[in-house]
Amino acid sequence: MFRLYDYLPSGNGYKVRLTLRYLALPYELVEVDIKRGESRTPAFLALNPNGRIPALEVPGRGVLAESHAIISYLAKGSALLPGDAWAEALVWQWMCFEQYNLEPAIGTARFWLRSLGRTEAELGQSLTDKLVAGRAALQVLNGALTGKRFLVGDRYSLADIALYAYTHVAPEAGIDLDVYPAIRHWIRNVEAERSWIPITSR
Amino acid sequence: MFRLYDYLPSGNGYKVRLTLRYLALPYELVEVDIKRGESRTPAFLALNPNGRIPALEVPGRGVLAESHAIISYLAKGSALLPGDAWAEALVWQWMCFEQYNLEPAIGTARFWLRSLGRTEAELGQSLTDKLVAGRAALQVLNGALTGKRFLVGDRYSLADIALYAYTHVAPEAGIDLDVYPAIRHWIRNVEAERSWIPITSR
Repeated sequence: MFRLYDYLPSGNGYKVRLTLRYLALPYELVEVDIKRGESRTPAFLALNPNGRIPALEVPGRGVLAESHAIISYLAKGSALLPGDAWAEALVWQWMCFEQYNLEPAIGTARFWLRSLGRTEAELGQSLTDKLVAGRAALQVLNGALTGKRFLVGDRYSLADIALYAYTHVAPEAGIDLDVYPAIRHWIRNVEAERSWIPITSR
Repeated sequence: MFRLYDYLPSGNGYKVRLTLRYLALPYELVEVDIKRGESRTPAFLALNPNGRIPALEVPGRGVLAESHAIISYLAKGSALLPGDAWAEALVWQWMCFEQYNLEPAIGTARFWLRSLGRTEAELGQSLTDKLVAGRAALQVLNGALTGKRFLVGDRYSLADIALYAYTHVAPEAGIDLDVYPAIRHWIRNVEAERSWIPITSR
Protein backbone atom coordinates (compact mmCIF):
# COMPACT_ATOMS: atom_id res chain seq x y z
CA MET A 1 0.00 0.00 0.00
CA PHE A 2 1.16 3.58 -0.59
CA ARG A 3 2.43 5.42 2.49
CA LEU A 4 1.98 9.19 2.44
CA TYR A 5 4.09 11.39 4.70
CA ASP A 6 2.10 14.57 5.08
CA TYR A 7 1.10 17.54 7.24
CA LEU A 8 -2.66 17.92 7.00
CA PRO A 9 -2.86 21.75 6.70
CA SER A 10 -0.40 21.62 3.77
CA GLY A 11 -1.82 22.58 0.39
CA ASN A 12 0.93 20.56 -1.27
CA GLY A 13 -0.08 17.48 0.70
CA TYR A 14 -3.74 18.21 -0.03
CA LYS A 15 -3.04 17.93 -3.78
CA VAL A 16 -1.86 14.35 -3.19
CA ARG A 17 -4.84 13.51 -0.95
CA LEU A 18 -7.31 14.90 -3.54
CA THR A 19 -5.63 12.83 -6.26
CA LEU A 20 -5.58 9.63 -4.18
CA ARG A 21 -9.24 10.13 -3.34
CA TYR A 22 -10.22 10.77 -6.99
CA LEU A 23 -8.39 7.61 -8.05
CA ALA A 24 -9.82 5.66 -5.07
CA LEU A 25 -6.32 4.49 -4.12
CA PRO A 26 -5.91 3.26 -0.53
CA TYR A 27 -2.96 4.60 1.44
CA GLU A 28 -1.50 4.81 4.90
CA LEU A 29 -1.06 8.34 6.25
CA VAL A 30 1.95 9.21 8.40
CA GLU A 31 1.51 12.66 9.90
CA VAL A 32 4.65 14.81 10.05
CA ASP A 33 4.42 17.98 12.13
CA ILE A 34 6.59 20.36 10.14
CA LYS A 35 6.13 23.11 12.76
CA ARG A 36 7.93 20.88 15.27
CA GLY A 37 10.76 20.08 12.84
CA GLU A 38 9.63 16.52 12.19
CA SER A 39 10.51 16.80 8.48
CA ARG A 40 14.14 17.59 9.37
CA THR A 41 14.93 14.64 11.64
CA PRO A 42 17.63 12.17 10.53
CA ALA A 43 14.93 9.52 10.05
CA PHE A 44 12.86 11.76 7.76
CA LEU A 45 15.89 13.05 5.86
CA ALA A 46 16.74 9.42 5.07
CA LEU A 47 13.37 9.27 3.26
CA ASN A 48 13.51 12.71 1.63
CA PRO A 49 16.91 14.41 1.83
CA ASN A 50 15.19 17.69 0.94
CA GLY A 51 13.32 17.56 4.27
CA ARG A 52 9.86 18.35 2.96
CA ILE A 53 6.40 16.85 2.86
CA PRO A 54 4.55 15.45 1.02
CA ALA A 55 6.59 12.34 0.27
CA LEU A 56 5.08 9.11 -1.05
CA GLU A 57 6.57 5.72 -0.31
CA VAL A 58 5.79 3.38 -3.20
CA PRO A 59 6.13 -0.34 -2.41
CA GLY A 60 8.96 -1.95 -4.33
CA ARG A 61 10.09 1.40 -5.75
CA GLY A 62 11.13 3.91 -3.10
CA VAL A 63 10.20 7.38 -1.95
CA LEU A 64 8.98 10.09 -4.31
CA ALA A 65 9.05 13.75 -3.26
CA GLU A 66 7.52 16.93 -4.74
CA SER A 67 3.74 17.18 -4.90
CA HIS A 68 3.47 17.53 -8.67
CA ALA A 69 5.83 14.62 -9.36
CA ILE A 70 3.72 12.52 -6.99
CA ILE A 71 0.30 13.42 -8.43
CA SER A 72 1.44 12.97 -12.04
CA TYR A 73 2.89 9.55 -11.16
CA LEU A 74 -0.36 8.51 -9.49
CA ALA A 75 -2.62 9.92 -12.22
CA LYS A 76 -0.75 8.60 -15.25
CA GLY A 77 -3.23 6.96 -17.60
CA SER A 78 -6.25 8.35 -15.72
CA ALA A 79 -8.70 11.07 -16.76
CA LEU A 80 -6.80 13.53 -14.53
CA LEU A 81 -3.86 13.66 -16.95
CA PRO A 82 -4.82 14.21 -20.60
CA GLY A 83 -3.47 11.67 -23.09
CA ASP A 84 -3.04 14.37 -25.75
CA ALA A 85 0.55 15.69 -25.63
CA TRP A 86 -0.39 19.37 -26.01
CA ALA A 87 -3.08 19.20 -23.30
CA GLU A 88 -0.62 17.38 -21.01
CA ALA A 89 1.93 20.13 -21.67
CA LEU A 90 -0.64 22.76 -20.65
CA VAL A 91 -1.35 20.85 -17.44
CA TRP A 92 2.37 20.96 -16.67
CA GLN A 93 2.58 24.63 -17.61
CA TRP A 94 -0.03 25.41 -14.96
CA MET A 95 1.55 23.15 -12.36
CA CYS A 96 4.95 24.82 -12.91
CA PHE A 97 3.31 28.23 -12.67
CA GLU A 98 1.74 27.21 -9.36
CA GLN A 99 5.00 26.04 -7.86
CA TYR A 100 6.99 29.06 -8.97
CA ASN A 101 4.53 31.97 -8.81
CA LEU A 102 1.59 31.06 -6.62
CA GLU A 103 2.67 28.64 -3.87
CA PRO A 104 5.81 30.51 -2.74
CA ALA A 105 3.68 33.64 -2.32
CA ILE A 106 0.30 32.51 -1.00
CA GLY A 107 1.47 29.27 0.60
CA THR A 108 4.30 30.96 2.48
CA ALA A 109 2.18 33.92 3.68
CA ARG A 110 -0.51 31.51 4.84
CA PHE A 111 2.06 29.35 6.68
CA TRP A 112 3.51 32.38 8.47
CA LEU A 113 0.10 33.70 9.52
CA ARG A 114 -1.88 30.52 10.11
CA SER A 115 0.59 27.81 11.10
CA LEU A 116 3.27 29.88 12.81
CA GLY A 117 0.78 32.43 14.19
CA ARG A 118 2.92 35.42 13.25
CA THR A 119 1.27 38.82 12.89
CA GLU A 120 1.15 41.32 10.02
CA ALA A 121 3.00 43.83 12.19
CA GLU A 122 5.86 41.41 12.84
CA LEU A 123 6.15 40.32 9.22
CA GLY A 124 6.04 43.81 7.68
CA GLN A 125 7.59 44.12 4.23
CA SER A 126 8.17 40.37 3.86
CA LEU A 127 4.43 39.80 4.04
CA THR A 128 3.67 42.73 1.74
CA ASP A 129 6.04 41.31 -0.90
CA LYS A 130 4.35 37.91 -0.70
CA LEU A 131 0.88 39.42 -1.07
CA VAL A 132 1.92 41.50 -4.08
CA ALA A 133 3.34 38.37 -5.75
CA GLY A 134 0.29 36.31 -4.77
CA ARG A 135 -2.15 38.85 -6.24
CA ALA A 136 -0.13 38.99 -9.47
CA ALA A 137 -0.37 35.20 -9.77
CA LEU A 138 -4.11 35.24 -9.05
CA GLN A 139 -4.59 37.91 -11.70
CA VAL A 140 -2.98 35.65 -14.31
CA LEU A 141 -5.04 32.67 -13.10
CA ASN A 142 -8.28 34.69 -13.16
CA GLY A 143 -7.58 35.75 -16.74
CA ALA A 144 -6.95 32.17 -17.83
CA LEU A 145 -10.15 30.94 -16.17
CA THR A 146 -12.42 33.63 -17.61
CA GLY A 147 -15.16 31.91 -19.60
CA LYS A 148 -13.89 28.44 -18.70
CA ARG A 149 -15.06 25.68 -16.37
CA PHE A 150 -11.61 24.20 -15.79
CA LEU A 151 -8.03 25.15 -16.65
CA VAL A 152 -7.27 22.69 -19.45
CA GLY A 153 -9.57 21.13 -22.03
CA ASP A 154 -12.84 21.91 -20.26
CA ARG A 155 -12.42 19.01 -17.84
CA TYR A 156 -11.16 18.51 -14.29
CA SER A 157 -7.46 17.65 -14.33
CA LEU A 158 -4.31 17.75 -12.22
CA ALA A 159 -3.99 21.41 -13.21
CA ASP A 160 -7.17 22.20 -11.28
CA ILE A 161 -6.11 20.12 -8.26
CA ALA A 162 -2.66 21.75 -8.19
CA LEU A 163 -3.89 25.34 -8.56
CA TYR A 164 -6.95 24.97 -6.35
CA ALA A 165 -5.01 23.75 -3.31
CA TYR A 166 -3.50 27.11 -2.30
CA THR A 167 -5.84 29.39 -4.26
CA HIS A 168 -8.95 28.47 -2.28
CA VAL A 169 -7.18 29.25 1.02
CA ALA A 170 -5.81 32.60 -0.17
CA PRO A 171 -8.09 34.36 2.37
CA GLU A 172 -6.03 32.62 5.11
CA ALA A 173 -3.04 34.48 3.67
CA GLY A 174 -4.96 37.77 3.82
CA ILE A 175 -6.01 37.87 0.15
CA ASP A 176 -9.66 38.53 -0.63
CA LEU A 177 -10.91 36.45 -3.58
CA ASP A 178 -13.93 38.67 -4.25
CA VAL A 179 -12.05 40.58 -6.94
CA TYR A 180 -11.41 37.39 -8.96
CA PRO A 181 -14.85 36.29 -10.22
CA ALA A 182 -13.56 33.64 -12.61
CA ILE A 183 -11.54 32.06 -9.79
CA ARG A 184 -14.55 32.01 -7.47
CA HIS A 185 -16.67 30.36 -10.19
CA TRP A 186 -13.95 27.75 -10.83
CA ILE A 187 -13.58 27.02 -7.09
CA ARG A 188 -17.26 26.09 -7.07
CA ASN A 189 -16.71 23.78 -10.06
CA VAL A 190 -13.78 22.05 -8.34
CA GLU A 191 -15.73 21.66 -5.10
CA ALA A 192 -18.64 20.11 -7.01
CA GLU A 193 -16.42 17.16 -8.03
CA ARG A 194 -17.72 13.98 -6.41
CA SER A 195 -14.31 13.09 -4.96
CA TRP A 196 -13.68 16.51 -3.41
CA ILE A 197 -12.71 16.59 0.27
CA PRO A 198 -11.79 19.66 2.37
CA ILE A 199 -8.16 20.53 3.07
CA THR A 200 -6.86 18.80 6.26
CA SER A 201 -9.08 15.80 5.42
CA ARG A 202 -7.50 12.47 4.73
CA MET B 1 8.82 25.79 -37.27
CA PHE B 2 8.99 26.33 -33.51
CA ARG B 3 9.51 29.93 -32.42
CA LEU B 4 11.35 30.39 -29.11
CA TYR B 5 11.02 33.65 -27.18
CA ASP B 6 14.09 33.79 -25.01
CA TYR B 7 16.74 35.89 -23.25
CA LEU B 8 20.08 34.28 -23.95
CA PRO B 9 21.65 34.62 -20.47
CA SER B 10 18.58 32.89 -18.96
CA GLY B 11 19.19 29.45 -17.48
CA ASN B 12 15.51 28.65 -17.99
CA GLY B 13 15.81 29.50 -21.68
CA TYR B 14 19.07 27.55 -21.87
CA LYS B 15 17.24 24.37 -20.79
CA VAL B 16 15.02 24.73 -23.86
CA ARG B 17 17.95 25.46 -26.18
CA LEU B 18 19.89 22.42 -24.86
CA THR B 19 16.82 20.23 -25.43
CA LEU B 20 16.15 21.57 -28.94
CA ARG B 21 19.82 21.00 -29.81
CA TYR B 22 19.83 17.44 -28.41
CA LEU B 23 16.70 16.62 -30.41
CA ALA B 24 18.08 18.40 -33.52
CA LEU B 25 14.86 20.42 -33.84
CA PRO B 26 15.09 23.60 -35.91
CA TYR B 27 13.61 26.77 -34.43
CA GLU B 28 13.43 30.50 -34.86
CA LEU B 29 14.81 32.52 -31.94
CA VAL B 30 13.14 35.78 -30.91
CA GLU B 31 15.29 37.58 -28.37
CA VAL B 32 13.42 39.31 -25.54
CA ASP B 33 15.45 41.67 -23.38
CA ILE B 34 13.89 41.14 -19.97
CA LYS B 35 16.12 43.82 -18.43
CA ARG B 36 14.42 46.37 -20.67
CA GLY B 37 10.93 45.13 -19.82
CA GLU B 38 10.37 43.46 -23.19
CA SER B 39 8.60 40.50 -21.55
CA ARG B 40 5.98 42.84 -20.02
CA THR B 41 4.83 44.67 -23.16
CA PRO B 42 1.19 44.25 -24.25
CA ALA B 43 2.39 42.31 -27.31
CA PHE B 44 4.39 39.85 -25.20
CA LEU B 45 1.66 39.53 -22.55
CA ALA B 46 -0.70 38.49 -25.34
CA LEU B 47 1.66 35.54 -25.94
CA ASN B 48 2.36 34.71 -22.28
CA PRO B 49 0.11 36.51 -19.77
CA ASN B 50 2.62 35.62 -17.04
CA GLY B 51 5.18 37.91 -18.73
CA ARG B 52 8.12 35.51 -18.64
CA ILE B 53 10.54 33.83 -20.98
CA PRO B 54 11.07 31.20 -22.25
CA ALA B 55 7.88 30.76 -24.24
CA LEU B 56 7.56 28.40 -27.20
CA GLU B 57 5.19 29.04 -30.07
CA VAL B 58 4.11 25.71 -31.54
CA PRO B 59 2.61 25.90 -35.05
CA GLY B 60 -1.06 24.95 -35.08
CA ARG B 61 -1.18 24.72 -31.28
CA GLY B 62 -0.34 27.93 -29.51
CA VAL B 63 2.17 29.25 -27.00
CA LEU B 64 3.57 27.13 -24.19
CA ALA B 65 5.22 28.75 -21.17
CA GLU B 66 7.34 27.37 -18.28
CA SER B 67 10.70 25.84 -19.13
CA HIS B 68 9.95 22.38 -17.74
CA ALA B 69 6.57 22.15 -19.46
CA ILE B 70 8.32 23.10 -22.72
CA ILE B 71 11.21 20.65 -22.48
CA SER B 72 8.97 17.75 -21.45
CA TYR B 73 6.66 18.49 -24.38
CA LEU B 74 9.59 18.56 -26.79
CA ALA B 75 11.31 15.47 -25.36
CA LYS B 76 8.28 13.21 -25.07
CA GLY B 77 9.12 9.82 -26.59
CA SER B 78 12.84 10.62 -26.79
CA ALA B 79 15.73 9.23 -24.73
CA LEU B 80 15.68 12.41 -22.62
CA LEU B 81 12.43 11.37 -20.89
CA PRO B 82 12.40 7.80 -19.58
CA GLY B 83 9.51 5.61 -20.74
CA ASP B 84 9.39 3.86 -17.35
CA ALA B 85 6.79 5.58 -15.11
CA TRP B 86 8.92 5.52 -11.95
CA ALA B 87 11.99 6.92 -13.72
CA GLU B 88 9.84 9.61 -15.34
CA ALA B 89 8.46 10.48 -11.89
CA LEU B 90 12.01 10.89 -10.57
CA VAL B 91 12.86 13.18 -13.50
CA TRP B 92 9.88 15.33 -12.53
CA GLN B 93 10.83 15.21 -8.85
CA TRP B 94 14.20 16.74 -9.72
CA MET B 95 12.70 19.31 -12.09
CA CYS B 96 10.20 20.41 -9.42
CA PHE B 97 13.03 20.60 -6.87
CA GLU B 98 14.98 22.82 -9.26
CA GLN B 99 12.13 25.22 -9.83
CA TYR B 100 11.22 25.51 -6.16
CA ASN B 101 14.53 25.25 -4.30
CA LEU B 102 17.40 25.93 -6.67
CA GLU B 103 16.35 28.40 -9.36
CA PRO B 104 14.64 30.98 -7.10
CA ALA B 105 17.84 31.10 -5.02
CA ILE B 106 20.75 30.78 -7.44
CA GLY B 107 18.96 32.11 -10.52
CA THR B 108 17.70 35.20 -8.73
CA ALA B 109 21.03 35.99 -7.04
CA ARG B 110 22.81 35.58 -10.37
CA PHE B 111 20.28 37.85 -12.12
CA TRP B 112 20.71 40.57 -9.50
CA LEU B 113 24.50 40.46 -9.63
CA ARG B 114 25.18 39.65 -13.26
CA SER B 115 22.27 41.01 -15.28
CA LEU B 116 21.23 43.98 -13.14
CA GLY B 117 24.79 44.74 -11.98
CA ARG B 118 23.80 45.23 -8.36
CA THR B 119 26.44 44.87 -5.65
CA GLU B 120 26.66 42.67 -2.57
CA ALA B 121 26.65 45.79 -0.39
CA GLU B 122 23.41 47.05 -1.96
CA LEU B 123 21.66 43.68 -1.74
CA GLY B 124 22.64 42.87 1.85
CA GLN B 125 20.40 40.39 3.65
CA SER B 126 18.33 39.62 0.54
CA LEU B 127 21.44 38.24 -1.14
CA THR B 128 22.56 36.39 1.98
CA ASP B 129 19.17 34.65 2.20
CA LYS B 130 19.37 33.58 -1.45
CA LEU B 131 22.88 32.19 -0.99
CA VAL B 132 21.89 30.22 2.12
CA ALA B 133 18.95 28.70 0.21
CA GLY B 134 21.13 28.05 -2.85
CA ARG B 135 23.79 26.23 -0.84
CA ALA B 136 21.13 24.11 0.90
CA ALA B 137 19.78 23.07 -2.53
CA LEU B 138 23.29 22.29 -3.82
CA GLN B 139 23.96 20.16 -0.72
CA VAL B 140 20.90 18.04 -1.52
CA LEU B 141 21.92 17.80 -5.18
CA ASN B 142 25.51 16.87 -4.31
CA GLY B 143 24.26 14.08 -2.05
CA ALA B 144 22.00 12.70 -4.78
CA LEU B 145 24.81 12.75 -7.35
CA THR B 146 27.41 11.06 -5.15
CA GLY B 147 28.56 7.90 -6.89
CA LYS B 148 26.38 8.58 -9.94
CA ARG B 149 27.03 9.75 -13.48
CA PHE B 150 23.60 11.34 -13.99
CA LEU B 151 20.59 12.10 -11.81
CA VAL B 152 18.14 9.41 -12.97
CA GLY B 153 18.81 5.91 -14.28
CA ASP B 154 22.49 6.39 -15.08
CA ARG B 155 21.71 8.24 -18.31
CA TYR B 156 21.48 11.83 -19.48
CA SER B 157 17.89 13.08 -19.15
CA LEU B 158 15.79 16.21 -18.77
CA ALA B 159 16.62 16.09 -15.05
CA ASP B 160 20.29 16.76 -15.88
CA ILE B 161 19.45 19.52 -18.35
CA ALA B 162 17.08 21.21 -15.87
CA LEU B 163 19.44 21.06 -12.88
CA TYR B 164 22.63 21.81 -14.78
CA ALA B 165 21.35 25.09 -16.24
CA TYR B 166 21.63 27.19 -13.07
CA THR B 167 23.96 24.92 -11.09
CA HIS B 168 26.90 25.35 -13.45
CA VAL B 169 26.64 29.14 -13.22
CA ALA B 170 26.38 29.20 -9.42
CA PRO B 171 29.79 30.95 -9.27
CA GLU B 172 28.13 33.90 -11.07
CA ALA B 173 25.81 34.09 -8.05
CA GLY B 174 28.79 34.05 -5.69
CA ILE B 175 28.67 30.35 -4.81
CA ASP B 176 31.89 28.36 -5.05
CA LEU B 177 31.30 24.83 -6.41
CA ASP B 178 34.62 23.47 -5.09
CA VAL B 179 32.91 22.11 -1.98
CA TYR B 180 30.52 19.95 -4.06
CA PRO B 181 32.74 17.30 -5.68
CA ALA B 182 29.88 15.15 -6.98
CA ILE B 183 28.35 18.20 -8.68
CA ARG B 184 31.64 19.13 -10.31
CA HIS B 185 32.05 15.57 -11.62
CA TRP B 186 28.48 15.56 -12.98
CA ILE B 187 28.98 18.94 -14.66
CA ARG B 188 31.87 17.39 -16.60
CA ASN B 189 29.60 14.49 -17.63
CA VAL B 190 26.88 16.86 -18.85
CA GLU B 191 29.41 18.98 -20.76
CA ALA B 192 30.79 15.84 -22.44
CA GLU B 193 27.40 15.26 -24.14
CA ARG B 194 27.80 15.66 -27.90
CA SER B 195 24.91 18.11 -28.16
CA TRP B 196 26.13 20.37 -25.33
CA ILE B 197 26.40 24.10 -26.09
CA PRO B 198 27.39 26.89 -23.69
CA ILE B 199 24.77 29.07 -22.02
CA THR B 200 23.90 32.16 -24.16
CA SER B 201 24.43 30.03 -27.29
CA ARG B 202 21.55 29.44 -29.62
